[in-house]
Amino acid sequence: MIKAAVVGGTGYTGVELMRLLARHPQVELALATSRSDAGKTVAEVYPNLKGAVELVFSEPELARLAECEVIFFATPNGTAMKYAEALLERGRLVIDLAADFLLQDPALWERWYGQPHACPQLLEEAVYGLPEFNRDRIRQARLIACPGCYPTAVQLGLLPLMSKRLVETVGLVADCKSGVSGAGRKAQVGSLMAECGESFKAYAVSGHRHHPEIRQGLEAMAGQPVELTFVPHLVPMIRGIHATLYATPRDPRLDFQEVFEAFYGEEFFVDVLPPGSHPDTGDVRGANRCQIAVHQPFQQRLVILSVIDNLVKGAAGQGVQNMNLACGFPETLGLEMPAFYP
Amino acid sequence: MIKAAVVGGTGYTGVELMRLLARHPQVELALATSRSDAGKTVAEVYPNLKGAVELVFSEPELARLAECEVIFFATPNGTAMKYAEALLERGRLVIDLAADFLLQDPALWERWYGQPHACPQLLEEAVYGLPEFNRDRIRQARLIACPGCYPTAVQLGLLPLMSKRLVETVGLVADCKSGVSGAGRKAQVGSLMAECGESFKAYAVSGHRHHPEIRQGLEAMAGQPVELTFVPHLVPMIRGIHATLYATPRDPRLDFQEVFEAFYGEEFFVDVLPPGSHPDTGDVRGANRCQIAVHQPFQQRLVILSVIDNLVKGAAGQGVQNMNLACGFPETLGLEMPAFYP
Amino acid sequence: MIKAAVVGGTGYTGVELMRLLARHPQVELALATSRSDAGKTVAEVYPNLKGAVELVFSEPELARLAECEVIFFATPNGTAMKYAEALLERGRLVIDLAADFLLQDPALWERWYGQPHACPQLLEEAVYGLPEFNRDRIRQARLIACPGCYPTAVQLGLLPLMSKRLVETVGLVADCKSGVSGAGRKAQVGSLMAECGESFKAYAVSGHRHHPEIRQGLEAMAGQPVELTFVPHLVPMIRGIHATLYATPRDPRLDFQEVFEAFYGEEFFVDVLPPGSHPDTGDVRGANRCQIAVHQPFQQRLVILSVIDNLVKGAAGQGVQNMNLACGFPETLGLEMPAFYP
Amino acid sequence: MIKAAVVGGTGYTGVELMRLLARHPQVELALATSRSDAGKTVAEVYPNLKGAVELVFSEPELARLAECEVIFFATPNGTAMKYAEALLERGRLVIDLAADFLLQDPALWERWYGQPHACPQLLEEAVYGLPEFNRDRIRQARLIACPGCYPTAVQLGLLPLMSKRLVETVGLVADCKSGVSGAGRKAQVGSLMAECGESFKAYAVSGHRHHPEIRQGLEAMAGQPVELTFVPHLVPMIRGIHATLYATPRDPRLDFQEVFEAFYGEEFFVDVLPPGSHPDTGDVRGANRCQIAVHQPFQQRLVILSVIDNLVKGAAGQGVQNMNLACGFPETLGLEMPAFYP
Repeated sequence: MIKAAVVGGTGYTGVELMRLLARHPQVELALATSRSDAGKTVAEVYPNLKGAVELVFSEPELARLAECEVIFFATPNGTAMKYAEALLERGRLVIDLAADFLLQDPALWERWYGQPHACPQLLEEAVYGLPEFNRDRIRQARLIACPGCYPTAVQLGLLPLMSKRLVETVGLVADCKSGVSGAGRKAQVGSLMAECGESFKAYAVSGHRHHPEIRQGLEAMAGQPVELTFVPHLVPMIRGIHATLYATPRDPRLDFQEVFEAFYGEEFFVDVLPPGSHPDTGDVRGANRCQIAVHQPFQQRLVILSVIDNLVKGAAGQGVQNMNLACGFPETLGLEMPAFYP
Repeated sequence: MIKAAVVGGTGYTGVELMRLLARHPQVELALATSRSDAGKTVAEVYPNLKGAVELVFSEPELARLAECEVIFFATPNGTAMKYAEALLERGRLVIDLAADFLLQDPALWERWYGQPHACPQLLEEAVYGLPEFNRDRIRQARLIACPGCYPTAVQLGLLPLMSKRLVETVGLVADCKSGVSGAGRKAQVGSLMAECGESFKAYAVSGHRHHPEIRQGLEAMAGQPVELTFVPHLVPMIRGIHATLYATPRDPRLDFQEVFEAFYGEEFFVDVLPPGSHPDTGDVRGANRCQIAVHQPFQQRLVILSVIDNLVKGAAGQGVQNMNLACGFPETLGLEMPAFYP
Repeated sequence: MIKAAVVGGTGYTGVELMRLLARHPQVELALATSRSDAGKTVAEVYPNLKGAVELVFSEPELARLAECEVIFFATPNGTAMKYAEALLERGRLVIDLAADFLLQDPALWERWYGQPHACPQLLEEAVYGLPEFNRDRIRQARLIACPGCYPTAVQLGLLPLMSKRLVETVGLVADCKSGVSGAGRKAQVGSLMAECGESFKAYAVSGHRHHPEIRQGLEAMAGQPVELTFVPHLVPMIRGIHATLYATPRDPRLDFQEVFEAFYGEEFFVDVLPPGSHPDTGDVRGANRCQIAVHQPFQQRLVILSVIDNLVKGAAGQGVQNMNLACGFPETLGLEMPAFYP
Repeated sequence: MIKAAVVGGTGYTGVELMRLLARHPQVELALATSRSDAGKTVAEVYPNLKGAVELVFSEPELARLAECEVIFFATPNGTAMKYAEALLERGRLVIDLAADFLLQDPALWERWYGQPHACPQLLEEAVYGLPEFNRDRIRQARLIACPGCYPTAVQLGLLPLMSKRLVETVGLVADCKSGVSGAGRKAQVGSLMAECGESFKAYAVSGHRHHPEIRQGLEAMAGQPVELTFVPHLVPMIRGIHATLYATPRDPRLDFQEVFEAFYGEEFFVDVLPPGSHPDTGDVRGANRCQIAVHQPFQQRLVILSVIDNLVKGAAGQGVQNMNLACGFPETLGLEMPAFYP
């Protein structure tokens, strides 16, 4: 049993983390912090955790965080980078679910996130927490940067193609759709149900923070520059991301279904669906799982469909998967619950 | 043609009013004010009105308001009462879609709305704008207080029973359900789609501002005190109110279907559905219409079902209906468009 | 480890049962039958169970069912009663999630379900599977009739009041709201999203099959006749039931909050929320849990709010809870996962 | 005043047509047919039309149809082609909202629609009813084939680029998203709210009937072959289509915003939004309107966003617009109502 802390437990990622950690057989959820809800019980703020989490939210304090073996940051961007170095010095495992350590280039980070980076010296050590790509490094990591939700769906959909260089690296299109929980638990008019219910729209077409992260990831896989158009859209549902990925095969005669099945054959959390399938975000809801289908509607066109739950495989679940790897637990521990449907 | 102003055009009631007035054959929508959006075109803030409303939002100013024959207040509570007297003095028609003139007792108003009333001297003159109950007074009115959304649905469902004293006035239950647009266009966590989508709950069971308004209305109909339990609930949809009303008949052998059909036979905006019907909020969406069904599951129990669109018959549409009456236009002018389905 | 069979695994209750049993530490899910999907893998029909359930749907056959210690029927009404006797003779535990054994009076059953009852001789032995009311009998049961979804929410909300005779038994109102999964996985126009999305309506006001079941249950609790008005409504969400219950206290000065907290203090699956709470179906989604709030808006009126997930505490989860009791397992085994939110 | 008939009035397109025609100042809706609902009043089947449409559904009969000047077919595919010739012989205007006359090549039609074409001799005369492309021909037409919903959104989004040959005609991607009303009012499991609510998926990636229609249209605009990838998706909302269109500019230095504004400057039903906009399906709901935004996230990439209400500009509204043109009425008559929001 190790002790875990969740910093920033009042957002959707935080409460999802607590849901998962509460049932993890090797973890004691020992601390949950929240500046806004300090002093309240977790169950008072999140009645869904009544009976499962008995903690009271506290203010974040380094000393108390450092009493835990693993510290999850489910905080706004710019928080984890203030605590990380001190926690690493004390030998702790730090898992950031925000964006602080996602980009290796501090200048690029500062441009997209609009603030100076508080500890650029850790960027090189930080391990990008996409286990299906980076498993060995994660096992050795002390500081893990969990991929964003869109980047997880897009990169898992393209990983077999990029790492084996089976498609052109220009002209890639990632048309992505997200449920509204991706916008977080923030009071803003655009996220009101009266605004985003019964409606559909794109956003940030001119540029989204996940774009440089996806490019960095794809380029690491392909070992060469990648040109990608990324358009996110908002879906009137709560959880789920669907990435529709368009690529041009280098050799159109390859059996791409076979390529994906071979690549992901051993991966517990990635399902390659049978030919002709259309994965549904509703089939991964609540689960740490990515489902993928491979289509080739005509010779020169591959269409890959990739779905995840943005709060699980796109956030909290992937965080736990990374913890399992870094702590030497079985990778699937505490993450076996199937998705719920309907 | 008369000129109309909409004060507070940036809420859901305001934009719905502009949608209706833009097509009204006897009205020129001459002015739309908004403190927060002053200087922007209406179409910029509300792209749905592109091509229909060419105005620019301005700051509210008495002089400009007074250039219009009718002034609608779609403002937060406490605004209309600051302008009403001056506008009446200038001979204008004031229609308040907020709550400022809804309660005849200023002490009761102050208790529920938490502020002193700025012009209690107008409360007596203000006419309660429920045309099916109060048509003759509305025709003579200079200051009209439009009923709230819940009060409209509940009172239309009970009006035939109360005004003819056909049910007990104790033990009444109004179990009401509203779409989320009823909470307004305010940035608040509880109205986020991730919070209120895929979920259902009651609120304000211990007391809601519409309760004293409903009681006042029912007591005016019945001419005697009324004891009512009122419980509002939030439905994961945008528009619509459904009132489920429970009453005890004085004479259970009456044909209550017949009572309702006779009572509402001449009303254009109230449909009494055939016996055995279950009105659907989806069938009044976008229309100035109330649909009602009458059930008597057993002798001693009447169940009345009443549905409206909270933004139309529960707000903006009823405001226009009141204007039509007070201005001597045909009551249905500009309000004939049927509901859209699905 | 015991072997379990799910008969009728292609409805929403069936798939939910499989989701729960797949992770139950004392159960091997050995058999899943479906006439319509026989020959297909479970994961093909329900991709959410990929990786969790490896079975192939088969036709139901008595011999194979009888190889399992416990047989769940998640079938249309009228199926379980054809197999129950033969399975009981072979010493098996039968848990029916349909309505075959819910009513003790076969004439009443035949009136409401429109068919002759195939084994009325078992009605007396069948145990009504509401553990919070009937735990001791369930522990001894061979044939368990799981309560319907509405009856679970209503009875748990009224159980402390009825069993202690704290309210009048006339004039009770149960105004209930259900998500659309309650209508089952049947192709019917009324359940299309274009019909029931963005809309709200009552149904079956003149009479619903759950009415006699609720009355039978309440009368068993109170030991006297009960007069109840029950009105179900359809909510545009997938999972969840909210019961709003209106009753008249016999002694209005009692502390009813205290009554409920004392009554349910030891119940793992029933939460009495703090005074002033409004339970949200979204906080019990996916969990075997009922959350209750107690309100007394004025002296003579109690309003009890009770929420469950209709597919879990209202169906599959309650079935597993009953199995745990009847098999001597800890009552909460396999049911500890908290609800997911948002 | 002309008389109009709606054949097949029991689908979503039919009821939307009746909603629009009921208020059209130059049309008397004289006949509504439905095989399944013959003998019932329209208001009984569609309570939203109570007070607006007084007709009784009848069986379709040629003689009665021919008494009307214009006959709309809102029928399943394969119906209009059985009546069209006889109606044209009688001098009537036929407007088909199904697919019978959409493809000019009968062999292509038969391949995609799986039945022989009953009157291929009319295919050449049939006019493709996209007014923004084909206005002059529609003015002269006797037989109008209304574009499908996806084809309308995609073609309006690409029309300025194709007709002026400003983009490459290979590598085009149309990633499209539709509300569930696009699937029609048919009892099918996949359209249940419990299935398609809170979920998102692609469908028909390997081939969809609207693909050949879109290609035919784009090739007519461009005057050369076009290679297009078309992927439709299902959105958990009722109305609305969003097309996200990816193209490669021939001259990246052009001002494409300007191109679109100039092209659509005179079009009442097409709005080109300001630079940086993201059109929302919620802003065209209920209106005969297309809203478009133009993005060029980097030099070699154009992203065009195009939204319509699939039942209005994508079906019934466009049908009325076509009727207005062919009958010599002002093009916007009866179609001026703005979209409703929220």
